[in-house]
Amino acid sequence: MEITHLNPDSLFSNPAFSQGVLVRGGHDTLYVGGQNGTDASGAIVEGGIGPQTEQALRNVLAVLAEAGADQTNVVRLAVYLVDGQSFDEGFAASQRVWGRHATAITGFKVAALARPDALVEIEAVAVLE
Amino acid sequence: MEITHLNPDSLFSNPAFSQGVLVRGGHDTLYVGGQNGTDASGAIVEGGIGPQTEQALRNVLAVLAEAGADQTNVVRLAVYLVDGQSFDEGFAASQRVWGRHATAITGFKVAALARPDALVEIEAVAVLE
Amino acid sequence: MEITHLNPDSLFSNPAFSQGVLVRGGHDTLYVGGQNGTDASGAIVEGGIGPQTEQALRNVLAVLAEAGADQTNVVRLAVYLVDGQSFDEGFAASQRVWGRHATAITGFKVAALARPDALVEIEAVAVLE
Repeated sequence: MEITHLNPDSLFSNPAFSQGVLVRGGHDTLYVGGQNGTDASGAIVEGGIGPQTEQALRNVLAVLAEAGADQTNVVRLAVYLVDGQSFDEGFAASQRVWGRHATAITGFKVAALARPDALVEIEAVAVLE
Repeated sequence: MEITHLNPDSLFSNPAFSQGVLVRGGHDTLYVGGQNGTDASGAIVEGGIGPQTEQALRNVLAVLAEAGADQTNVVRLAVYLVDGQSFDEGFAASQRVWGRHATAITGFKVAALARPDALVEIEAVAVLE
Repeated sequence: MEITHLNPDSLFSNPAFSQGVLVRGGHDTLYVGGQNGTDASGAIVEGGIGPQTEQALRNVLAVLAEAGADQTNVVRLAVYLVDGQSFDEGFAASQRVWGRHATAITGFKVAALARPDALVEIEAVAVLE
């Protein structure tokens, strides 16, 4: 797969983040819609930001798997937390299901999500082999 | 057109949303900049979130049309509402100009938009045949 | 390079913004992760939103340069400001390092960024020749 992670020497390096991800050539591309911490019945899982982050990432992984892909195929990840929630807590939880796979990430806190009882939403773009 | 909507059985299904959208091969891609509810003179239309959402989507459709595309070509849709506005009201309004075309969507409420008098901004990525 | 800027006659025209950007064919694509106004040591530069915006854009340009690209390759730019900061001030600062290169842009104000001491985050998608 032609995915190259770019980390220019002039930029501070963070092992959890790629400054840029280059995709060579015209590949199959997967757009994963914003995933909340919902279970198969559509209910938000209990336990707050940690469990919701784990479940949202499990949902992203389920969509990736449907296309024969996994974390290593993701070229853009966006993480939206509801204001008042902790990125540190969400990041710690993410390690348990996602592991460490650096990619181009953006993340910030919003006033609310489209689904009012969700605390986190995660969307992704992935490139297939 | 090689657009496939992915909805894994393990995820709760919502008819207005695709869990993932897969684009096979290297196609022409259209990035639609964030559209507000502005008319041809650049003024925000009157009437609040409903009319602004309709107008923003008309603007997205105008850009899609310029490339020979329409709603069915959209592979990512992002909807940003100003805090205090209603997603239900915006969604109801959207049906009148956009109809029901599920795609990968993200949506949340922000403190303010770059244009201070706008209540909604909608951006899109579309893939052409 | 097959990048075409679309500005339908029916939409109000803004010289700093392209209503749509069309990419013909399957090209190399670069996803630039959200950049803050951090220097090479990882510290946020001093001076507030103006200097942070300049530095964040310098970081975007450094990632683009690593792939042999520059502003003209960018097909989507997203600018996230922390609530209370001024888009006018950020835009004025951006001119000094970025110049005027219209593209498809989205921008809004968020409650906070993943990095708590950052005032602005900028991410980009670019298409290479």
